[in-house]
Amino acid sequence: MSDRFEARRKKLLRLLRDEGLPAMLVTAEKNVSYLTGFTGDSSYLLLGRDLAVVISDSRYTTQLKEECPTLDAVIRKTDVSLPQAAARVLRKAKLSQLAFEGQNVTFELHQKLADNLAQVELVPLNGRIESDLRAIKDADEINELRLAVQFAARGFEFLKATLTHGMTEREISHDLEHAMRRFGAEGVSFTPIIAVGDRAALPHYHPGDLKVEESPILLTDWGAQTRSGYRSDLTRVLVTGRPTAKLEKVYNVVLEAQQRAIAAIGPGVVCRDVDKAARETIHNAGYGKRFGHGLGHGIGLDIHEQPRLAPVSETILQPGMVVTVEPGIYLPGWGGVRIEDDVLVTRDGHEVLSNSVPNEFEQAFVDLGN
Amino acid sequence: MSDRFEARRKKLLRLLRDEGLPAMLVTAEKNVSYLTGFTGDSSYLLLGRDLAVVISDSRYTTQLKEECPTLDAVIRKTDVSLPQAAARVLRKAKLSQLAFEGQNVTFELHQKLADNLAQVELVPLNGRIESDLRAIKDADEINELRLAVQFAARGFEFLKATLTHGMTEREISHDLEHAMRRFGAEGVSFTPIIAVGDRAALPHYHPGDLKVEESPILLTDWGAQTRSGYRSDLTRVLVTGRPTAKLEKVYNVVLEAQQRAIAAIGPGVVCRDVDKAARETIHNAGYGKRFGHGLGHGIGLDIHEQPRLAPVSETILQPGMVVTVEPGIYLPGWGGVRIEDDVLVTRDGHEVLSNSVPNEFEQAFVDLGN
Repeated sequence: MSDRFEARRKKLLRLLRDEGLPAMLVTAEKNVSYLTGFTGDSSYLLLGRDLAVVISDSRYTTQLKEECPTLDAVIRKTDVSLPQAAARVLRKAKLSQLAFEGQNVTFELHQKLADNLAQVELVPLNGRIESDLRAIKDADEINELRLAVQFAARGFEFLKATLTHGMTEREISHDLEHAMRRFGAEGVSFTPIIAVGDRAALPHYHPGDLKVEESPILLTDWGAQTRSGYRSDLTRVLVTGRPTAKLEKVYNVVLEAQQRAIAAIGPGVVCRDVDKAARETIHNAGYGKRFGHGLGHGIGLDIHEQPRLAPVSETILQPGMVVTVEPGIYLPGWGGVRIEDDVLVTRDGHEVLSNSVPNEFEQAFVDLGN
Repeated sequence: MSDRFEARRKKLLRLLRDEGLPAMLVTAEKNVSYLTGFTGDSSYLLLGRDLAVVISDSRYTTQLKEECPTLDAVIRKTDVSLPQAAARVLRKAKLSQLAFEGQNVTFELHQKLADNLAQVELVPLNGRIESDLRAIKDADEINELRLAVQFAARGFEFLKATLTHGMTEREISHDLEHAMRRFGAEGVSFTPIIAVGDRAALPHYHPGDLKVEESPILLTDWGAQTRSGYRSDLTRVLVTGRPTAKLEKVYNVVLEAQQRAIAAIGPGVVCRDVDKAARETIHNAGYGKRFGHGLGHGIGLDIHEQPRLAPVSETILQPGMVVTVEPGIYLPGWGGVRIEDDVLVTRDGHEVLSNSVPNEFEQAFVDLGN
């Protein structure tokens, strides 16, 4: 069980060696969890050659023994702050240099560390665990993401099966979360976007009190989180009333753009070229100005991870990366269509993890009853 | 509607004047929201004399006009980062000094701001909005907290009314959240602690797969969040089987400790003296070593706010502060009892906001059925 965490720590040690740094203080909660398997909070990992210590407090003594038995743990007392405890461990380790996460450590914490560690040169290493390690999923993480997609897929079947006249966006959102939890999910990956009609034109809408029958368009952007914290992210548009020809046209442009982008995904491909495949399709259909966001993003322990599929992204896709592909066309005052799937980069191409969720226009119809 | 936000900004301007600082860049999301009424994310507030600007992006153009019509908004373009946009606004404002939130600004962000603002002295002002402003609730916030307590109280009635043989901690937790949402809550204030038997000895337990009938002790630590983001925080122990004399004894020691602490609350009282009132009662009953955490904490937009009720806290209570009072006795391998209420400091004493939730041992019994 702990092997995968050890493998991740070895990768980080190699990265530190390449940077000429002897050790790193990992402070970001999800990075500590990723590197150790520990699921608590308020704890740091100090990692160096012959050095792997979790600095925590007495709430977590038992949990640390269970979750990371091979790591040393320093349990601070109530009257010693976390930065003070970290400084003590660091002084004992007699390091001359220490890498830290500049994208996570606050100005205040940096000052406290610097005040307590006069002999140590603190070197920022910003976002490297995210870009160099977490962006490429190992076998366990890919299994977790498959599970997160399964929960989401079953949640969407539930939503379609239970959708009726009179339900508000908020009720639909809450029922969806409750159902996915009953299926085994820890919860949602993020507050679902459940948007009726013209609200579907707002890419970051928060579900409100609109009723589902107020428009034939219902956009659902949702995901599930597994107990280990991995997150899926999908979008579908349902047709809940008589559709217009315009809706069918827009839907099919978005679907074609998405399918072209997915087809472009494979190892060695530059991210911006995947974005381009979708963007050109939408541009050629005359909706170029109506797709204002990037094409997609990595998913994992966070809902937005590396790499980004965007017009400026130079990142090269590698096997093990998992990205969303989610083009959209948004027409203010009318509504919007976005279609989103989760795609794994494989050794010889890609695999759509969410391909069990129907995506054709003809499959989008739902009868609301009376 | 916007008056209360203006009143809060005026308070912050007075604080800045007292510190001899001309302006502040507010970056912490909840502090921006507290000072402006804006409910989106990824936005900063720049506040100074004759200066009140929200720096945001195009997702929020409409929302900013609706939520804070009296404030200036700078909408950055997609190719300009938030720190870059902030730096542009700051250069235009021609400030010589600028306060920032050192407890929130990361080392990386601080460097970016410093690189872009060579002429400006950046002065950390750490946690002052939290300690000097948010710790004392205004009338609107007190109403929101009353509502958050109401949702929680009704949720607990639901929990008691629906608790049956075979339910797991996790199911109880999920059903409680779903019910509170149906009553109008935005969601829970935090993942509820639903702990059966010896798990009740772990103050930060996460609900698992234990079934409610496995012990007569069920500890529930839960709260609700209003749509504006205010959070309640309560704890009760239910007796779901034949109780031992020990359980009754421990329960009543905790209740007496809690009631003594609540009786001590009033304006001008030092926080540590409230903690002491509870701690002495537990110590005198012979359980002094079994109460390992502080007595309570402020609640508001965050679940843990200022002030802290703890043995070392020198803070003086003021009217408008709202704190939890939550002593506990934890016996490893046996279980634990904690009783928690939310208490408002008034001009002439205090008011228990959650006094509608029964707290007597005789009221704690629940029949699980068969």
